[in-house]
Amino acid sequence: MEFQDVVRRRRMVRRFTDEPVPSETVDRLLRNAVRAPSAGFTQGWSFLVLTSEEERERFWSATTPEGSERDMSAWLAGMRTAPVLIVALTSQAAYVGRYAEPDKGWTDRDEARWPVPYWHVDAGMAALLMLQTAVDEDLGACFFGIDAGRLSAFRDAFGVPEEWAPTGVIAVGHPVAGGAKGSPARRQRKAMADIVHRGRW
Amino acid sequence: MEFQDVVRRRRMVRRFTDEPVPSETVDRLLRNAVRAPSAGFTQGWSFLVLTSEEERERFWSATTPEGSERDMSAWLAGMRTAPVLIVALTSQAAYVGRYAEPDKGWTDRDEARWPVPYWHVDAGMAALLMLQTAVDEDLGACFFGIDAGRLSAFRDAFGVPEEWAPTGVIAVGHPVAGGAKGSPARRQRKAMADIVHRGRW
Repeated sequence: MEFQDVVRRRRMVRRFTDEPVPSETVDRLLRNAVRAPSAGFTQGWSFLVLTSEEERERFWSATTPEGSERDMSAWLAGMRTAPVLIVALTSQAAYVGRYAEPDKGWTDRDEARWPVPYWHVDAGMAALLMLQTAVDEDLGACFFGIDAGRLSAFRDAFGVPEEWAPTGVIAVGHPVAGGAKGSPARRQRKAMADIVHRGRW
Repeated sequence: MEFQDVVRRRRMVRRFTDEPVPSETVDRLLRNAVRAPSAGFTQGWSFLVLTSEEERERFWSATTPEGSERDMSAWLAGMRTAPVLIVALTSQAAYVGRYAEPDKGWTDRDEARWPVPYWHVDAGMAALLMLQTAVDEDLGACFFGIDAGRLSAFRDAFGVPEEWAPTGVIAVGHPVAGGAKGSPARRQRKAMADIVHRGRW
């Protein structure tokens, strides 16, 4: 597909058919993910791929906030139909360590050097590449975060070490109507004139 | 260009010819930037576009750490040739405010709800869309951060309010050989087997 068509067509999909996603497609998503930029070519990312019903059920049961099933029911009912979940995780330690290497030379490992957490930025870019690749495969996908209160349950469910923080999750499948509406259905796109500053603020 | 070719060809370019980038191309970069995903469709991003020699000179003079000109000379000499700089900025306040609205309902505005700073993730995705669009336009681009110690000088130079944090800068131009080598020239790509976990960690 033309690049501009991928950009134009990409939107969050929150409900999927029961048609499976071939494992070669999952592999292509992952291969494109690691084509994302990576500060210092740290590549401090990991991907947890959940495809069996048991794995996905474990994910939803670990990450759904208690008592929220009713509030989130439309969202959850749709998202649970995704045949593939890919959790993009990142390691702050990998980045701080990378920039302490001789060719970077930030020997002090001072966190004040990092006003922007590029570990999450890079993993987010990897996630965007997966969302785009899903479009290129005529699939649908959604990117979402794991509730802060459910992080330790998520770690426990899948044996994820403390070093690795989930930047977000990509749900992938064949799109179908009927998923929860996203915020773009309720909010206007901002005018370019309000967000672009030329020459100075 | 085919999407997969954009993914395959994208790499950081650190030196540019003196050929200018048409303003319509800059506008296309910006229009694609705001096609990035945005949590809650907050769109809490802004873009500072610097195209005149005076604006770019003010940028480099504000953001280059004192005493580092010699260490950074190869990088700087190449990057200073970029005819266009676009600073991607983000507002944490916009996101926290958005999620306190009725349809999101996080009325407490508790920062602990945000283990991942999605304001930087979204602005980073917008930056990736600009890098990709540059490839689609047969241009080159580089994404880099502003040194933590130069943030206030950067703000002063362009009148940027405290609310807005620069996630990073995209330099764009017509690519030419001779720019500084990036980390991928010195580091191996990680094997997929080391970063992909299937079913559990």
